[in-house]
Amino acid sequence: MNITFLPQNRTIQGQPGETVLQAAARAGIHIDGNCAGAGTCGKCLVKISGRAEQEAGYRLACTELVWDGMIVQVPELETADDRKKKLIRLPENFVPQPTVRKQLVRLTKTGLAESQSLQERIQNALGQSELVFPCQVLRVLPTLLKESQELTLTLWGSQVLHAEAGDQQWKNYGVAVDMGTTTVVIMLWDLNKGQLVQVAAKTNPQSVYGADVISRITGVMEDGQNLQKLQGLMIQCINEAVSSFEETEGVQAENIYRYSLVGNTTMSHILLGIDPCPLAVSPFEPVFTRGVEVRALELGLKGNTNAGVHLAPNIAGHVGSDITAGILTTSLLDWQQGHLFLDIGTNGEIVLAGKGRAAACSTAAGPAFEGSSIRQGMRAALGAIEQVEIEEEQVRIQTIGGGEPLGICGSGIIDAVGELIRTGLLDKSGRLLSKEKLRQKGISEPLLEHVREEGRSSQFVLYFSPDGFRDVVLTQKDLREVQLVKAAISAGMTILMKELGLELRELERITIAGAFGSYIRRESAVNMGLLPNVEEDKFFFAGNTAGIGAAMILLSADCQKAAEALARQIQHVELAARSDFQEYYMAAMGF
Amino acid sequence: MNITFLPQNRTIQGQPGETVLQAAARAGIHIDGNCAGAGTCGKCLVKISGRAEQEAGYRLACTELVWDGMIVQVPELETADDRKKKLIRLPENFVPQPTVRKQLVRLTKTGLAESQSLQERIQNALGQSELVFPCQVLRVLPTLLKESQELTLTLWGSQVLHAEAGDQQWKNYGVAVDMGTTTVVIMLWDLNKGQLVQVAAKTNPQSVYGADVISRITGVMEDGQNLQKLQGLMIQCINEAVSSFEETEGVQAENIYRYSLVGNTTMSHILLGIDPCPLAVSPFEPVFTRGVEVRALELGLKGNTNAGVHLAPNIAGHVGSDITAGILTTSLLDWQQGHLFLDIGTNGEIVLAGKGRAAACSTAAGPAFEGSSIRQGMRAALGAIEQVEIEEEQVRIQTIGGGEPLGICGSGIIDAVGELIRTGLLDKSGRLLSKEKLRQKGISEPLLEHVREEGRSSQFVLYFSPDGFRDVVLTQKDLREVQLVKAAISAGMTILMKELGLELRELERITIAGAFGSYIRRESAVNMGLLPNVEEDKFFFAGNTAGIGAAMILLSADCQKAAEALARQIQHVELAARSDFQEYYMAAMGF
Repeated sequence: MNITFLPQNRTIQGQPGETVLQAAARAGIHIDGNCAGAGTCGKCLVKISGRAEQEAGYRLACTELVWDGMIVQVPELETADDRKKKLIRLPENFVPQPTVRKQLVRLTKTGLAESQSLQERIQNALGQSELVFPCQVLRVLPTLLKESQELTLTLWGSQVLHAEAGDQQWKNYGVAVDMGTTTVVIMLWDLNKGQLVQVAAKTNPQSVYGADVISRITGVMEDGQNLQKLQGLMIQCINEAVSSFEETEGVQAENIYRYSLVGNTTMSHILLGIDPCPLAVSPFEPVFTRGVEVRALELGLKGNTNAGVHLAPNIAGHVGSDITAGILTTSLLDWQQGHLFLDIGTNGEIVLAGKGRAAACSTAAGPAFEGSSIRQGMRAALGAIEQVEIEEEQVRIQTIGGGEPLGICGSGIIDAVGELIRTGLLDKSGRLLSKEKLRQKGISEPLLEHVREEGRSSQFVLYFSPDGFRDVVLTQKDLREVQLVKAAISAGMTILMKELGLELRELERITIAGAFGSYIRRESAVNMGLLPNVEEDKFFFAGNTAGIGAAMILLSADCQKAAEALARQIQHVELAARSDFQEYYMAAMGF
Repeated sequence: MNITFLPQNRTIQGQPGETVLQAAARAGIHIDGNCAGAGTCGKCLVKISGRAEQEAGYRLACTELVWDGMIVQVPELETADDRKKKLIRLPENFVPQPTVRKQLVRLTKTGLAESQSLQERIQNALGQSELVFPCQVLRVLPTLLKESQELTLTLWGSQVLHAEAGDQQWKNYGVAVDMGTTTVVIMLWDLNKGQLVQVAAKTNPQSVYGADVISRITGVMEDGQNLQKLQGLMIQCINEAVSSFEETEGVQAENIYRYSLVGNTTMSHILLGIDPCPLAVSPFEPVFTRGVEVRALELGLKGNTNAGVHLAPNIAGHVGSDITAGILTTSLLDWQQGHLFLDIGTNGEIVLAGKGRAAACSTAAGPAFEGSSIRQGMRAALGAIEQVEIEEEQVRIQTIGGGEPLGICGSGIIDAVGELIRTGLLDKSGRLLSKEKLRQKGISEPLLEHVREEGRSSQFVLYFSPDGFRDVVLTQKDLREVQLVKAAISAGMTILMKELGLELRELERITIAGAFGSYIRRESAVNMGLLPNVEEDKFFFAGNTAGIGAAMILLSADCQKAAEALARQIQHVELAARSDFQEYYMAAMGF
């Protein structure tokens, strides 16, 4: 029973009674999904074809059984790598000064009378008398010298990391990682040139334990063993990306000398195998916030034996090193007037700077914009509706890749909600108006077609599929979900403004971080009340700031130091401890 | 078939046809020997008893077969622990300032609004804001806090090594090791008090590969696998001593936070698993000389997960860190006039300081004074003749432990040779005179009894055993062996004096290092020409300087730094590169 997976073009032997999801797992192919095969989340949609009598079409991989000759087209997040790569732009004034450098030395033989030690000969040839050689390097030196009198030494500060025979200076790589709750972005950097070589964006495999950090922490609370499992999944995810770089870029793991990782505080704890449970109960105290230096070997990350891993400093229990790294890209504290930094991912973190101070908070935004709590939500992968325009007589949609819509991603949701508000289809209280009321308001009949009433609830149809079975809709419940997120973020912003004594008009800049931020339309976000209504030129869509920040830390010791200072300078405001939060939250609920 | 080993009082089942040596090995009991069971070296003498019809007595363990009820008395080097302990005396002006310190912190719960991180709370409680926490420590913090709000932190500089619940400040230990070619001395130190807790002196188990460093290096040349084996033997030897400290002193390995090791350059290379082969061929270039810092875990040494190991700097290929450590104990460079430092162990190393300079050399002394190339030589263990006096009509001997003599150790050899020269039994050329000549010279008949002529060769009988089978003698060949060692050391001293432009009369101090040095009689050593003939008050017998130096490095960061500087200040003189060496060597051959 042959099953072929595309675009991987991998064929495996299917087993009778097995689902497509199970077969894919055996083949090492990741298919999205977070209802653990219950058939309820609808995230594991794949395109099936291959047999004449069987109609080609979309099916749920978790319920569809395999049959001989089946061809399974998997919507790969990996095809979004190029999209991810575009979001990695180092700031224009950034000067890479990688701390890992390679140097070639040519050794000359010494006579009996002036014999020193091999170590000293190398130090003299390099003109550095205080190098620290780890045992592993000392062990290989005699063998390398038999091969060549030329050695390439890899140095990190005064530490020798690696010794190779001959001239190997050009092989100098580092890896920067943004460990998102939903997506892990892994970047390979050429440390000599300070240039990005390749990017891989992978679904965070911890998602099987739940879409948000709280469900993963709960998993650890229920069974302590899950901590090692979650840790292992993250390490494996990064290692798989590095393996793919080895294949596609011809890079060897032993020439990867440094890692720079960022992630929210939960991801950071899990990466190091540190109990994240305190983060789920008041006072949400992390075990650590400072930057951590650890050996790649100790964590099991692929790389040189002596490769170091730097995990950037967190700010608080729910404001992680991804935010520290993000702020690093913005020169946030240089803005004398107000500067607002907004990162809406699986959580929503807000940082506000101004008048010489800076404060941060996190809102339990939930993964609505990553697609998780939205019926047909999906990540920004092929087939996701990413833009919506509601015209007088029609709804225009645009999908990633341009093909048939499979669901809707964050930017599409914001666009849709913004447009529903602008056109008056959604009222201030967040309710989809009935066809009757809309007709009274003079909405055109073709547009009314898009409003579908199901008993007492309604939904707005964004896409009508030819057979009617694969329509993409936003339900009233979806819209309520968006409303809660928006209210939380809005209340957080208000509290930070109050904390620093800033007014909306004093904001000089609003930086929107995250992959997400780069694809939303400002007007829609302003219309739905997610972004403050200020002049257009104050907005700056900064791309994957967490990833860029991780790279900056990888490429510059100054940036690593700056990140540490930054994380300590920012005051954390715990919204749960604020008596006024509920008031602002309720007030921000309406559109 | 029951075999009982004493003093361990361990009984095992013997196997038919097995030798006592084999049975001992199975029982984990070490018996000396370096002819690998050929029955030729005579080093594995044990006392057998247990059966009425079998006469109790000394037998070679490598040839004696086991029988039921056998009681084997093993001459244990371990019984010499107290003797070794006496040789460890810190210099009077030494102030211990151990770098590893333990501190108790009492944590207070924080409220929701002022929550920081557990790490920061600890740092604040300690009043140190820049501590570095390794992952392992971060991992246990949440669990420890559930046990107690009091934590004991172990710090090494700004590094946190260990966290424990409750007050555990008193458990703070370090280990200093002198890795001698023949004997490994392992010392347990209380790092809070700067006091020696216990000493173990163990036969270097690498001895099975040969008594001197060259034969061990040859073993590695013949089969590269032997490097790991030799390394493993040293690690195991140290770990066994640490295990015995755990048992006898109630110390736990996790409370051992630091190791300080010294040894000759070959021992240092082998300890780290670094190829020592270059040390055996010109230009005898070591792979490294600088001090090395490595984790105990990485080497497999017992101790805390984060315990560090410091291996002190070597000076040259055959002047190792045991010499660096030795000099550290002497304030060698403070002596404006000449100061000679002599360490005669398995090799003979000489350091001379004066007129603002210092130089060192090593002589291939060979292990004569450790007993190896002497027919009945043995180490300074129970039963070794350690003192000899030749009176007019008799020979007085003294053995370690006072019992029946089993052989002769270094101090006994020097004493014997010195006395043979003083009494004229040995002539200037190193020849034992014939009975006839001695009778002419007027030597008494009872003394002539001690001269035994075997064909053209003679021997001097130090001890006549009742049955005549276990006499202890020095042969003419033994005496030649001593002569060669003495000539090499003497030539080395001469060359160093010449190098620094010093005269014998300018020597203010002669420090004799080593366990060996502490038990020889100065007059005998001067008589035989091993030590220069200067005023008695210039001699200083310094004990186990290598071990003391290792302890000083363990107990003081300043000493660790001083050792590094010292190793670089001392000029190494390679005797093999000196054209004048042969001349001085020949000239020093006579007594």
